[in-house]
Amino acid sequence: MRTDGRNNRELRPVHIQPHYIKHAEGSVLIEIGDTRVICTATVEDKVPPFMRGGGKGWITAEYGMLPRATEQRNAREASKGKVSGRTMEIQRLIGRALRSVVELEQLGERTVWIDCDVIQADGGTRTASITGAYVALVLALSKLVAEGKLESLPVRDFLAATSVGIDPEHGVILDLNYSEDARAKVDMNVVMTGAGQFVEIQGTGEEASFSRAELEELLETAQLGIEQLITIQRRVLGEQAALIGEKVEQEGKSE
Amino acid sequence: MRTDGRNNRELRPVHIQPHYIKHAEGSVLIEIGDTRVICTATVEDKVPPFMRGGGKGWITAEYGMLPRATEQRNAREASKGKVSGRTMEIQRLIGRALRSVVELEQLGERTVWIDCDVIQADGGTRTASITGAYVALVLALSKLVAEGKLESLPVRDFLAATSVGIDPEHGVILDLNYSEDARAKVDMNVVMTGAGQFVEIQGTGEEASFSRAELEELLETAQLGIEQLITIQRRVLGEQAALIGEKVEQEGKSE
Amino acid sequence: MRTDGRNNRELRPVHIQPHYIKHAEGSVLIEIGDTRVICTATVEDKVPPFMRGGGKGWITAEYGMLPRATEQRNAREASKGKVSGRTMEIQRLIGRALRSVVELEQLGERTVWIDCDVIQADGGTRTASITGAYVALVLALSKLVAEGKLESLPVRDFLAATSVGIDPEHGVILDLNYSEDARAKVDMNVVMTGAGQFVEIQGTGEEASFSRAELEELLETAQLGIEQLITIQRRVLGEQAALIGEKVEQEGKSE
Amino acid sequence: MRTDGRNNRELRPVHIQPHYIKHAEGSVLIEIGDTRVICTATVEDKVPPFMRGGGKGWITAEYGMLPRATEQRNAREASKGKVSGRTMEIQRLIGRALRSVVELEQLGERTVWIDCDVIQADGGTRTASITGAYVALVLALSKLVAEGKLESLPVRDFLAATSVGIDPEHGVILDLNYSEDARAKVDMNVVMTGAGQFVEIQGTGEEASFSRAELEELLETAQLGIEQLITIQRRVLGEQAALIGEKVEQEGKSE
Amino acid sequence: MRTDGRNNRELRPVHIQPHYIKHAEGSVLIEIGDTRVICTATVEDKVPPFMRGGGKGWITAEYGMLPRATEQRNAREASKGKVSGRTMEIQRLIGRALRSVVELEQLGERTVWIDCDVIQADGGTRTASITGAYVALVLALSKLVAEGKLESLPVRDFLAATSVGIDPEHGVILDLNYSEDARAKVDMNVVMTGAGQFVEIQGTGEEASFSRAELEELLETAQLGIEQLITIQRRVLGEQAALIGEKVEQEGKSE
Amino acid sequence: MRTDGRNNRELRPVHIQPHYIKHAEGSVLIEIGDTRVICTATVEDKVPPFMRGGGKGWITAEYGMLPRATEQRNAREASKGKVSGRTMEIQRLIGRALRSVVELEQLGERTVWIDCDVIQADGGTRTASITGAYVALVLALSKLVAEGKLESLPVRDFLAATSVGIDPEHGVILDLNYSEDARAKVDMNVVMTGAGQFVEIQGTGEEASFSRAELEELLETAQLGIEQLITIQRRVLGEQAALIGEKVEQEGKSE
Repeated sequence: MRTDGRNNRELRPVHIQPHYIKHAEGSVLIEIGDTRVICTATVEDKVPPFMRGGGKGWITAEYGMLPRATEQRNAREASKGKVSGRTMEIQRLIGRALRSVVELEQLGERTVWIDCDVIQADGGTRTASITGAYVALVLALSKLVAEGKLESLPVRDFLAATSVGIDPEHGVILDLNYSEDARAKVDMNVVMTGAGQFVEIQGTGEEASFSRAELEELLETAQLGIEQLITIQRRVLGEQAALIGEKVEQEGKSE
Repeated sequence: MRTDGRNNRELRPVHIQPHYIKHAEGSVLIEIGDTRVICTATVEDKVPPFMRGGGKGWITAEYGMLPRATEQRNAREASKGKVSGRTMEIQRLIGRALRSVVELEQLGERTVWIDCDVIQADGGTRTASITGAYVALVLALSKLVAEGKLESLPVRDFLAATSVGIDPEHGVILDLNYSEDARAKVDMNVVMTGAGQFVEIQGTGEEASFSRAELEELLETAQLGIEQLITIQRRVLGEQAALIGEKVEQEGKSE
Repeated sequence: MRTDGRNNRELRPVHIQPHYIKHAEGSVLIEIGDTRVICTATVEDKVPPFMRGGGKGWITAEYGMLPRATEQRNAREASKGKVSGRTMEIQRLIGRALRSVVELEQLGERTVWIDCDVIQADGGTRTASITGAYVALVLALSKLVAEGKLESLPVRDFLAATSVGIDPEHGVILDLNYSEDARAKVDMNVVMTGAGQFVEIQGTGEEASFSRAELEELLETAQLGIEQLITIQRRVLGEQAALIGEKVEQEGKSE
Repeated sequence: MRTDGRNNRELRPVHIQPHYIKHAEGSVLIEIGDTRVICTATVEDKVPPFMRGGGKGWITAEYGMLPRATEQRNAREASKGKVSGRTMEIQRLIGRALRSVVELEQLGERTVWIDCDVIQADGGTRTASITGAYVALVLALSKLVAEGKLESLPVRDFLAATSVGIDPEHGVILDLNYSEDARAKVDMNVVMTGAGQFVEIQGTGEEASFSRAELEELLETAQLGIEQLITIQRRVLGEQAALIGEKVEQEGKSE
Repeated sequence: MRTDGRNNRELRPVHIQPHYIKHAEGSVLIEIGDTRVICTATVEDKVPPFMRGGGKGWITAEYGMLPRATEQRNAREASKGKVSGRTMEIQRLIGRALRSVVELEQLGERTVWIDCDVIQADGGTRTASITGAYVALVLALSKLVAEGKLESLPVRDFLAATSVGIDPEHGVILDLNYSEDARAKVDMNVVMTGAGQFVEIQGTGEEASFSRAELEELLETAQLGIEQLITIQRRVLGEQAALIGEKVEQEGKSE
Repeated sequence: MRTDGRNNRELRPVHIQPHYIKHAEGSVLIEIGDTRVICTATVEDKVPPFMRGGGKGWITAEYGMLPRATEQRNAREASKGKVSGRTMEIQRLIGRALRSVVELEQLGERTVWIDCDVIQADGGTRTASITGAYVALVLALSKLVAEGKLESLPVRDFLAATSVGIDPEHGVILDLNYSEDARAKVDMNVVMTGAGQFVEIQGTGEEASFSRAELEELLETAQLGIEQLITIQRRVLGEQAALIGEKVEQEGKSE
């Protein structure tokens, strides 16, 4: 048993509260154990200069952490005057992941700005951000449909992410909290769709390496976790989830 | 009656939730109407270089706003690579206000970092920050006392802040929400102690001016609001409030 | 008597030299005691993006200090690559104050850039900047009238600023020099119009507070100083002052 | 057959020229097809502040691209005043990968700075950087051994990297050039050791996703490429390679 | 005899390799002794905002050094987030020098971006940059002629640069390497045309000065070196050189 | 005759007002025609890190321009967040020039910070800065002697600078004002000592070149101007000038 009493393939308690921020087109507060992230989706009626005139939309993400989200206070990136490499890596990952399940042509020349701000951190903030941001994004796009700006929801599939790792004592474990993450010899973030396809795999052995067999086990464990996360997303999204579910099924049949 | 049904001298509903962030030495979520701010206090066992060796402590504040705290998304200051003049002004104000009620000699060579992060904005974010940060600060200092690092609470008095303004239709009003703030011809932020002393007055006529009589009414209205805010702080702080209350009384007698 | 021989309600010697910089549309060198500031006003035939098409003008200010204006050399903000919070606060104050007495609609889509550069500092640089910048601004606007670009001077009233404070020994004093400012327990900057209206009050107790009675005395003392400063501005402005004076009187009657 | 005549599992011509820069402790020019990268390794006799006193060494990497390394000129990051997210991501990847095969305790409190500068780019610059930097690093560490500063080479294993992807026409392909990379629906960078262990897997479906079966094929193809790259590294390193080879074998037996 | 066996008026071996970078419109690798610089010329079909509509072209230069081009590793300017004064000085010099021999009207509203990147440094990097960049520039402009975008080569004359200095032991010397440069009491960079005209003279006595007679000798020595460099440029440029040579001659006759 | 009535070899009126800024150890206001520069010298009792322990002093310079010193307002470098290449070039030139006439060993481990701030610009600001800064520097060093911190004035010689140029109409001219500078085909700044030695020559043909004969005439003209500037410096410095004069003479005899 792990330090917080979970077994190796068990997620921490997950809670997603929709419509958390009144101003945003879509927003959630996602809590996974002690990790808490506010995700908002903002719709802007233009695209970045390099995409103008192409008729396609864009999704871009920014990620931040409150200074005291962590055990030790972290200097504010605004005060330091620059965004760290870690932040940029996470921002790029979130944007890329979300774009993989959205019909950008159908979105039209609009940008959706995703903001993920970590209020409290206890490991897995980037995967919680993706899982929460997906819901905020669907809420914002549904609002465009409700307002008649889009004919139908331009979302191809569900999308969620989790972390897996190799613990020196417990072996392959799911959804690492901060102290588990700090001692893991291999750390992997996996993003998958509702149809069980991979969107992103980032596996790293910091001062270590891993075998093909270990990789297999990591991926299976991640898939288990992601399936549960998508079940929770579906519950939160209700009707919208039903629409997306139909699309995934039809897609499956037509292949 | 104002647009949200309040009378001129009425605060919006105020709620202060202590211990909101598990990692911080002191923290609250303060909600004043739709304005919500997370305030944390972090204790560091050293002071800035210019104060070393003087035996005195220091309190410094940083302020931020999530990009979608506002009706329109605001670009992230970390992404822009610099902190705006408005943010700096607010940070300086919060730090100065809190320092005015703390015995810095008694604090010893420690810095308390105050972080005020606006999760949702609807006017009055700087005064809500001061009111909330005061509670987070007292919680953090009480922890130092509980741990035996300080003999007694180095806090001289209570401290809270509110905004007042002159509305073109309603005249002098208390605790302006965003839409009231946008149309006010005069805007004033007032910081006061439990003993009814002024710590800071910042009154501004943007493209307008105000008379001595209007000033009197603004100050009286602010005082009314601040007294109510301090009542709420006392309730949240409980025992700690009692200790501070005794100090204020003794101070009053000895003068 | 104060260290420089003044009584509590006495200004330092004030001198305003107009047309100090040949290139600028309006300019002065203002000297208040040993504080010397060059103020220039530059007229630009467009407004910032957020104001375009609105038909209104804009006034914005920048403030700087030569590195050796102060007793100890201050690192150049250009070399540090960023503007300090103090500078930003002052810049915003100067701009806001000047905008309060100008008819921005009548100015049309023009920006007036105010630059206040402190050549030598001995306390009160921000209030000297406002007092000097007002004259530079009127000179620049008069030039627009003379050139036929404006029909009449779009200035509603006079405007000047001074500092007051509470000295531990002398009580409330007017126009603090640097050493007085350093030991004052309360420091207040006041901006007023020729009609005796307040435009800005910024009172601060650094590690101290002040009572309602003290506030009254501070404001009265400030008003005395500002009246004298406006008398000097009128003398320097001559004819232009007469035009503004008439406007203030008519305004007074029509109210 | 691919546009440049290769079959799906064929590398472009690879050439590694050691001792390319006379000042550096270790250096190579690595050419993989038209991609050319200068890799240098600099030994510094101290570690970053957060590691001091721990007795361990550190390896850190920086990556750059000459402005005209690419088809269109890219603005210089020095001129833009900041490093892009892409650059940071690559720098972090190179450093992490190299640290995974070095005995940092044995290195002692030294930092090895790896600089990878792309002179000409035609796809795969980050994997070429890792493959070349590994050789520069071994050359620099061998110099420390030759100078008697280290008793033996603190290198556990070989290390190389390559890219694989899914081409819409050809399926899974090895070592993508720029035009192949631009049209691939899935792109994966793989870093492996001489013993066939994974050090890093970064697989991304930009606006696409991939199945478990595709993942298997990608990994197998990558392994084929990496084995060839390590053969080339061994040839360039000669004697040093023999020493590392022995270590890998002994490690293998002892397991 | 100098430390590397040269006599006082002898250049180091010079080698210019044209077409070094496949993507650039013009490019060379120039080697002067151990100094190696990659120079590229990029043609862009527009000019900077301040020149638009004037019908004239522009040439601008950027200069960089790989971190390990020098004996000690230099921090990357991109990582430091700003370009040093030395770099800016060199960039401005290169651009100015090249503009002096190009018919900017004839070039039309195009910008040529010159990039000089020092791969390995051993003194004289700025003069090597000018000498190499001239060739890259002519190659790029010849390409415009070949493509029919220009009627004839808009180049008035040849252009090369070298350094001279006063060595405490040897007196006036040509083409200083790094160790000679470090001990020279006077250091001078000279840029000249094929017609023997001066384009730029920058002579500096760091903590020293020089007489009129010394100046004469420095200039003569520089001229000798520049003549040899132009001979090498002519050889590399072949046909293009013949065209420029004719122009210089005609110009000579017509004067 | 030139546009302002001067003949080709005539300086504009020169005025140097010493002790212009009360806080600085040495300061002047130098006026050359309409060009006005405040120069201050600040003594700091330490040297930059790279010089510590060497027993030598250092002189460094910073240069700035008020936004409205020029005909068109220039954006403030502090607001832009970076110093331009032009500013850096000038700063480096001023520092280098002053160091050439100071005995840095005799100065001891002190830094003299020179600040040159252009209040009004009409051409020749960098040469006026050098000429004025020399006087401010001698005043500051004399103060060190008067305070007993130095035994004697560590200044080897006088130092002044001027500009010369080739005007399309008038030929070689001395001390160019702004409009002359704008149309000159060759522009040269010359720094010389009282003994008539060159310290710095920077001659530039922007889109032009110049012959050996023209160079001779430029240098002779510059020397004439510098001799007059040094005469003015001597008058301003009085006694201090006498001490330096003796040193130059003795130096002359001993050679």
